[in-house]
Order: sequence, then structure tokens, then C-alpha cells
Amino acid sequence: MEAKELLQQHIAKIASIKEEDFDYVFSHFKPMSFKKGQAILSEGDKVDCEYFVTSGCLKAFFINDEIKMYILQFAMPTWWTSDYAALYNQTPATISVDCITDAEVLCLSSEDREKLCSEFHQLEHFFRWRTNRGYIASQKRLLSFMNNNVKKRYEELLSLYPQLYNLVPKHLIAAYLGVSRETLSRLHSS
Amino acid sequence: MEAKELLQQHIAKIASIKEEDFDYVFSHFKPMSFKKGQAILSEGDKVDCEYFVTSGCLKAFFINDEIKMYILQFAMPTWWTSDYAALYNQTPATISVDCITDAEVLCLSSEDREKLCSEFHQLEHFFRWRTNRGYIASQKRLLSFMNNNVKKRYEELLSLYPQLYNLVPKHLIAAYLGVSRETLSRLHSS
Repeated sequence: MEAKELLQQHIAKIASIKEEDFDYVFSHFKPMSFKKGQAILSEGDKVDCEYFVTSGCLKAFFINDEIKMYILQFAMPTWWTSDYAALYNQTPATISVDCITDAEVLCLSSEDREKLCSEFHQLEHFFRWRTNRGYIASQKRLLSFMNNNVKKRYEELLSLYPQLYNLVPKHLIAAYLGVSRETLSRLHSS
Repeated sequence: MEAKELLQQHIAKIASIKEEDFDYVFSHFKPMSFKKGQAILSEGDKVDCEYFVTSGCLKAFFINDEIKMYILQFAMPTWWTSDYAALYNQTPATISVDCITDAEVLCLSSEDREKLCSEFHQLEHFFRWRTNRGYIASQKRLLSFMNNNVKKRYEELLSLYPQLYNLVPKHLIAAYLGVSRETLSRLHSS
């Protein structure tokens, strides 16, 4: 499916934007292509955009004080990603985003998102809904960390991203769960 | 300050609602009073509402599989709280909310929030902004957990809630940080 059609269908699940208005809305999104391994956003960068994934798979990650990588999110088609704290607070990125596979995204600047939201009540509704899904997913991930039950976290991950185990290197799945590769192998075989 | 005025000023920071419209908006909020220690929302409850705190201090918490309590959020005047995952997915609460002090809240049902958001573009804007703040705070808290630097987490907590150390029993601050009371004492004296 073309990127434009994918975005249109994604928004149409929540908000109704007229066909002729959608052309105008879409003109604010900038298509970008990236190669496997390429960085979209790096720690310390100024953050102006958020990204709607149209093909491939990205990861949003964080390197802690002990140089241990944690994956916050895998982003596949129709997922949105950015460092939202940096984007809204106009602070340097603490989260990095790069490409697990070749990938294509639509990039929307913060300024354009705010403009479109003020022009279209239905888009404001869409972005409220979208932000709310992100908030709930983030809360769920926080609770998973607090609950400290690795097996349950692994099952949640597979139900959130069913195709992930075959798509993504095992060390990245371990980095999402915050466990070693050995622990992951035991979980998968049990 | 009266509850109504507090809510009006809180919304006015983000969205402009006419004086006469605000009376109508406010009529959807139900004032409720609670005593210190009283439960507002308990694990397993059906969740229909979110709560805007107008006086006192609440805690939103979670008990894990090892019966260890984690505090997700302290909610003070002008903060909103609920189990948002349960509220939006219509699943039983996994988060509980109770009162650290006597407290007053304004309760808004999900149905009324959606109605008001569709009636007033500006309120939709307000709730998008509010949800976004929640999302960012939740991401920040998740990163804190991943970073696993207790001293930094403690400093973040005090900057988020400067009056907290004198207001809230120490074991609750420890439950927010996920540390023992002894570790908290060492942090505070260092």
C-alpha cells in the first residue's frame, strides 16, 4: 500500500477527514527513506519531528549510565515514534531512533501538527486518541517493569508484536525485556 | 480557591473556553470528598471516571506479584488521575487510587469527556495537551526505571514535587522510588 493511503486509512479509523482536505493534510508530511542500521534520531539531537512508519521496522532506544541499551519501542508500519519529551520540551534528545530494517517514514513537524490540529477539529481528535494510546502503552510498560515478572513481559511483547520473534535479532528482544540472551532462550523454549 | 475556579484556571492555561460555556462544561464534573486513607479506585473495579484533584494528596499505586507496592503517581491539586488503561479499554482496574490526606476531587466520566471534546474543539485541544503531558511523564518515569540510578530518580522526584518530603510518609516515597526506607534515608542525608 502507498504511504499516503496507509496514513489515510490509519487516520480514518478514528477521525473523518474529507478526501479533498486529506490532500492538504498530507502535503505537510515529508516522505523519507532510510537504510538498515541508519540513525533517524540520535541522543543529543534537536527534535523537531515525529515519524509515522510506512514500511520496515525501527527501534527507539535509550543507553543508560552503565552503557546498557534498553529498547523502549519497536515501531512498525502505522506506528508513530519520536522522542516526545524532547519534542515538546524543546530539550536535546535522550532517546535514539534507528532502523532495524530498511524503512520508510512520513515526517511531521511539531509546528505543522499544531497548525493542522487547530485547522481540523477531527485531526485534533485523532492526535488526542493517538497520544492516549501511547500513554496507555507507556503505563503498561512501566507496570511490566515494576511487576518484574520476565515471563509475563515476554508474553506481553509477543502479543503486542506477534511477528517480532522472526523479524528482529534476539539480542534486541532481550534489550526490550531488560534480560540476558540466555534468559530469553530459556523463556522461548519453556 | 474554589474547585470550579481551580479547574477553570487550569484549563485556561491551554484552551480558551467562554465564561458562559464553562458553566455548561463544569456541570459535567461531579465534586466528591474523601477522608485520609479512603479508596477512590481499587484493583478489580470497573473504571468509568477520571479525577481532577482540587485539594489534598492522592496516590495511584500497583501491587506486584510479590505483594510489593509501587507508587505510579502522587496526585496533588490540578493533577488528574485514574487507571487510564482500564478506563479506555473497559477492563478491570489494575491500578488503585487512595487518599494520603483528606482530599477533594472533581470526577468526569469517560462518556462526558468524549461528549465535551466533540462539542468544544478547544476542550479537545486541552485534553490532547493534558494526555500528552501524562504520556511524557510516564516515558520519563520508565526511563528513570531503566536508568536504575536511584539518586537521580530521587532528585527528579523532589523537583517534580518539591513539597513532597514533608507532606508524605517516608515509606511512600520509598515505594515510589522502588527502594528500601534505609536506602531513602541515605539518599536524603547525602
